[in-house]
Amino acid sequence: MTFMDQEMHEEPQRIRQTLSGNAEIVRVIVGKVRNRRIRNIVVAGRGSSDHAATYFKYLCEIVAGIPVGFAAPSVLTVYQGRLDLSDTLTFGVSQSGKAEDVLAVLRHARRQGGLTVSITNDPLSPLALEADHHLNLFAGEEKSIAATKSFVCQMALFALFVQTLTDDQALKSQLDRLPEQMASTLEKKDSISQIAEIMTHSQACYVIGRGYVNAIAHELALKLQETCYMEAMPFSTSDFHHGPFAMLDQDSLVLLLAPNDPSMPDSLELLRKLLPTRAKVIAFTDTPDLPVDTKILLPETSPAMSPFLFVLAGQMLAFDLSLRRGLDPDRPRGLSKVTITR
Amino acid sequence: MTFMDQEMHEEPQRIRQTLSGNAEIVRVIVGKVRNRRIRNIVVAGRGSSDHAATYFKYLCEIVAGIPVGFAAPSVLTVYQGRLDLSDTLTFGVSQSGKAEDVLAVLRHARRQGGLTVSITNDPLSPLALEADHHLNLFAGEEKSIAATKSFVCQMALFALFVQTLTDDQALKSQLDRLPEQMASTLEKKDSISQIAEIMTHSQACYVIGRGYVNAIAHELALKLQETCYMEAMPFSTSDFHHGPFAMLDQDSLVLLLAPNDPSMPDSLELLRKLLPTRAKVIAFTDTPDLPVDTKILLPETSPAMSPFLFVLAGQMLAFDLSLRRGLDPDRPRGLSKVTITR
Repeated sequence: MTFMDQEMHEEPQRIRQTLSGNAEIVRVIVGKVRNRRIRNIVVAGRGSSDHAATYFKYLCEIVAGIPVGFAAPSVLTVYQGRLDLSDTLTFGVSQSGKAEDVLAVLRHARRQGGLTVSITNDPLSPLALEADHHLNLFAGEEKSIAATKSFVCQMALFALFVQTLTDDQALKSQLDRLPEQMASTLEKKDSISQIAEIMTHSQACYVIGRGYVNAIAHELALKLQETCYMEAMPFSTSDFHHGPFAMLDQDSLVLLLAPNDPSMPDSLELLRKLLPTRAKVIAFTDTPDLPVDTKILLPETSPAMSPFLFVLAGQMLAFDLSLRRGLDPDRPRGLSKVTITR
Repeated sequence: MTFMDQEMHEEPQRIRQTLSGNAEIVRVIVGKVRNRRIRNIVVAGRGSSDHAATYFKYLCEIVAGIPVGFAAPSVLTVYQGRLDLSDTLTFGVSQSGKAEDVLAVLRHARRQGGLTVSITNDPLSPLALEADHHLNLFAGEEKSIAATKSFVCQMALFALFVQTLTDDQALKSQLDRLPEQMASTLEKKDSISQIAEIMTHSQACYVIGRGYVNAIAHELALKLQETCYMEAMPFSTSDFHHGPFAMLDQDSLVLLLAPNDPSMPDSLELLRKLLPTRAKVIAFTDTPDLPVDTKILLPETSPAMSPFLFVLAGQMLAFDLSLRRGLDPDRPRGLSKVTITR
């Protein structure tokens, strides 16, 4: 058994631990956010951590209304910029807690008197020790280079933060049901493997989603890049219409993330527009009658929870495809588990 | 002569018009930003407009210190989110001024009492009429579907805003010299054409840059997608180390944007790491002794101005390559000049 497969199977349980293990400290942080009347949030993270931050941006702006931006660490580490984070809540996200550029952003924010929170999988890591508050992923050691369980735990933590900040009871019960839905998603193994078979020899694809699953388009593309060496290009549905659409022809492969949520009209419009290009389309969806021949049908869930199910299915697809190509999903060439960039 | 070529050649003059034509209204806007003590900026834009916003994020955070975030329009248009922009400066950027999603963000911000500014190429467009203030690109009609002159005018307007906000005299004199440096860049036509020849049959490439030119990596990739149907994948140098690096092999082509600025150590480190992969590297640089055999050598300039020169060279490359492939750079398949997404 590979680490990646094992770690994907831990996801339901790890999410449960993340949610229960952080409930109290998140209440403390939310108290400070309210006291300080914080009106702006910035997140620093790389790779998968950055994609978890993208999920957070949508959830926080939709449910809590506070604008979320992404740090460009080079503003500080390369150009010694003046960036003012003194009245901002700054999150630093890194599985290992060792990302130097993320640390630099958090340290800068803290020196200015901003509120800082780190999210890592190691409470003794530099990032954990630097921040005003630390949220522990409780994901257990992640041995596969490709992030799986740590990614969904990052998203779960961000969702817990938004839920606590807003006291949104619908979101609370959605989070309560999430581990069970993740377990149901794991049961889709065989149908996902059939899709992987179709993709065995594909060298490139477009991964497209809108709204809540835009983050997952980026994360799934990264999984396919890392574990299958596929040229997987992520796009939000709207951005795809603005230029990239010209690349499509009958040899193209499109992976469309189409959850049954208010973004469905955009998915259907894209499908209509794709028809004349004769590109091959594979859909991830929880809508049985979505007009696509080839699809991975996922358990029904709420808009805010669909990213969890979609990304797990995407991880399973990348894993299966990696094995089919004779690669080692745990050890992509040229990468190491801890990547440090300034 | 194609429109694209003609419009690229107008860039020096159009930048001059943009800067002089907006000096006064930008002073008025800056006055309001100061009076209202605005501490947060959000930009809404799609495609090239979004990339101009990325340039603005770096420049504003480095020079003026105000955090800049990007609007995710679906938060409002799809999910009817609560996003609070009441004490934010919100820019809406669209060449045509007809982008419905950008308009929705601006309208939402204005209803909440936020300060709103539109940047369009048509003072009578819906976006121009909706905002508290309108900045006119003065780019003249842009007939080519691929944005060229309107993109550099968008960046110039953002630079003018930051310069006025900070009264930074170095930036002022850099902007004064910019049109002349753009004209010098146009003279690189023959050497750029030689690089295009090398790329004639390349189907995919990675476009990589850090800091100020990160925005240009994204914009150049878009030009290659639109006008050459290349699978051009943009990355910031740091993100590229976090996963995508695994895709590289001896058949890969990397376009590296390596300006002579504080990000140079990152460019050199990436070049060292690329060696064992045997990927082909083509560099855009203003450093004659950069250790890359194949390069486009650009006029020397300052870090904040290099994106203008680099993107013009990139537009010229995409244009030349498009013709070599027998395509019409003015009319990419499947696209229209005005793209409206909700």
